[in-house]
Parts: sequence; structure tokens; C-alpha cells
Amino acid sequence: MMITITAFERSPDGGKGLARDMRVRWALEEVGQPYDVRLLSFKAMKEPAHLALNPFGQIPTYEEGDLALFESGAIVLHIAERHAGLLPDDANGRARAIAWMFAALTTIEEPIIDREAARYLEGDKPWFTQRLRIVDERIRKRLRELSARLGDVEWLDGAFSAGDLEMVSVLLRLKGSGLLEENPNLSAYVARGEARPAYKRAFEAQLEAFTTASAV
Amino acid sequence: MMITITAFERSPDGGKGLARDMRVRWALEEVGQPYDVRLLSFKAMKEPAHLALNPFGQIPTYEEGDLALFESGAIVLHIAERHAGLLPDDANGRARAIAWMFAALTTIEEPIIDREAARYLEGDKPWFTQRLRIVDERIRKRLRELSARLGDVEWLDGAFSAGDLEMVSVLLRLKGSGLLEENPNLSAYVARGEARPAYKRAFEAQLEAFTTASAV
Repeated sequence: MMITITAFERSPDGGKGLARDMRVRWALEEVGQPYDVRLLSFKAMKEPAHLALNPFGQIPTYEEGDLALFESGAIVLHIAERHAGLLPDDANGRARAIAWMFAALTTIEEPIIDREAARYLEGDKPWFTQRLRIVDERIRKRLRELSARLGDVEWLDGAFSAGDLEMVSVLLRLKGSGLLEENPNLSAYVARGEARPAYKRAFEAQLEAFTTASAV
Repeated sequence: MMITITAFERSPDGGKGLARDMRVRWALEEVGQPYDVRLLSFKAMKEPAHLALNPFGQIPTYEEGDLALFESGAIVLHIAERHAGLLPDDANGRARAIAWMFAALTTIEEPIIDREAARYLEGDKPWFTQRLRIVDERIRKRLRELSARLGDVEWLDGAFSAGDLEMVSVLLRLKGSGLLEENPNLSAYVARGEARPAYKRAFEAQLEAFTTASAV
């Protein structure tokens, strides 16, 4: 059965790979599954047809035969559970890799989204600089803890897993903030993620979609 | 094998059931699994023994034989996958219930945590009132979308699932804000969750732990 995902027709990040379809594309590339993409305008994302797939009007969604899913984390987990390559074989290792997915998407990503929301909702407010400092401290605390756990190993728990895929994807959102570079082992970890052939293929695919849409 | 979870020795919420061990207790009660609890002081949570279980120094953790897990979402999913009662039998229904778990813990909970962080980190700042208004609008948008999807059904997708368990737990954090009540079907949904016998048993257990610790 063919897999179809949705993505932005014109990604707000200009094709830098930060839109959440990138995580699903990366997972599909890691496990070697082909997929179709349906590009959506911002208007189409808020229309009933898309809201039936994702009640929050966001991308990506995932359709495969009778199954329709939303939430990139759930989609990546679904892919990881059905195809080899993103979760260890042993039950305990699988549970731990899934724990790292949740850590990435909740404990680590939450203050990072707060930082982004501050930039677009409060960037023009007189308190912005002071507030950014508060948010950055929240992020720094989590990065220090993550850095301490990662130490000098390659991936979070054994071989590369869906947990690393999500963690690298979340940390990539900090590019340009300078925060990641305060923990060199985290910078190197993210670079290892970006160097994976599956990541590169996914990145090129989302950039091409953006470039094509922008050329119309 | 006995299950052991960790919880706050003195929960910051005073036993109102908002600490994340409540979600794990609730899941264990729904599937009828007994468990032990190890209560931790704030100091003990930051010591090496606990950081080995949870690199972010948080509760809850979950130990069962050789397996040690952190992240309440991952723990609830682990319980739901291994025992009947929290996920539908059919594969597609299971994937959709898991998608609701992720929706609760990322899309819905993220601005709610932002609101709580604002209250304790910026409550004394001159911009607090204006900022609370911005955060509340972010929450309202998500609640309206969730309310529209829920409509007049009992649970998010068929029978009660781990997705509802997480969603109700996340929405409970809004008690006292007045935001939940703007969508009466969401208030009623949360009340249905709180009325479940398993929820009540879990609530009593966490309250008892708090009361006992406070009496020492």
C-alpha cells in the first residue's frame, strides 16, 4: 500500500528542514519505504478535508490504505514499529528508544517551541530580550542534562534509533541560537544525524518541494 | 515481576494529582497491575542514583526486572502495549490511540506548560499580565480545535484509551484557569475521566503518599 504524507506547499522555514514532515521523510528513508507527498497551502490546512485528518490543522499527516494518522511523533513510531531499522530487536531496548522519542518531543522540545513562539509573538514587545534570557536558561538546563547523559557515545542508547531521529530533529531547531554549541558533544551528535544518507535524501526531497512550489 | 515507580516525596501541587506519576498510577490501575512506589526528595532526584534512571532528574521512573524507563508518556505506552485495557485490539485503532497520546503531550500540553512556567518564572515581572494573555490565546486555539473534534462523543476515538488518559491528564492542569470551562464538552470529558474508578484509586494513592510524607 502506498504511503502518502502531507507537507507545506511553502514551508515557513524556506526549506531548511525544520517543518515536521522532515521527521517523517527521514524515518521513511531510514527504513527504505517510498512515499507520495501531497503539498498543502496554509488555507487548505484549515479546511474540513484536512481537519478530518488532523484536527489541529497541521502537517504532516500519514495515509496508508485504511489508516490515517496525525502527529509526527506517532507517525515516526508507527513506521519504526512496522519496519526494521529504527528500533532495536529486544523488547527492553525498544521501550528505551521510545522513551527517548518522548524525551525529545516533550522534555527537550517544549522550551524550544516556547523560544520560537516568543520570537514570533513577542519579538516586538519591550520585554522580549529579558524573556528570551529566561527561556534560554530553561533550554540550557535541559541541554546540559542531555549532554551529560550522552557523554562521548555516538547515539543515545546503542545503535541509531527513532529516539535519536527525534532528538536530532528537535535539536536542529536551535541552529543559529548558539545554544547547541555550548555543548560540543551535542553539536557533534546533531552533525552525525545530518550526515546520515537517509537524512540527506529526506532533506533534499523537502527542499525540492519548497523550491518547486516557490518557482510557480 | 514487581513494578516500582518513583514519585515526589512532597509533590509541589500538594497532592492535587498533577504530578506525572499520577498518569502512570492511573494507567496501572486501568490495567489492574499492582506497583510499588519509591518516594524521592527534591535532593535525591538530582543525585547520581536517580539521574541514572532519568537523566533529567524528574519523576516518574519505572522499573520492572531488567527494564528501567523514564518519561511518563513512554511508561504509559509501555503499560498499554503489554496489558489489555488501554489500547484497542485492531492495529489501526491502536495507532490512532497512540497518535492521541502524542497530541496530548505535545500539541496540547506544550502551551499549558508554557503557562505554568510563566507563572513561576515571570509572575513577578511587569509584563506578566500581558504575556499571560498571549499564552492563553495559544491554549484557547488548541482547546477550540480539540473541542470541535470531540463534539458530543464520550472519548476521542471509540472506547477509552491511553490517548484519553493522557489528554484528560493534560487538561486537568488547566483547572482553576477558567480556560477549560470555555468549552463545556471538554469540561465534561475531563469529568468523565476523573469519574473512572481507576482514576479515583490512583488519585487516592498519590494523595495518601503526599499526606503521609507531610505528616512526618
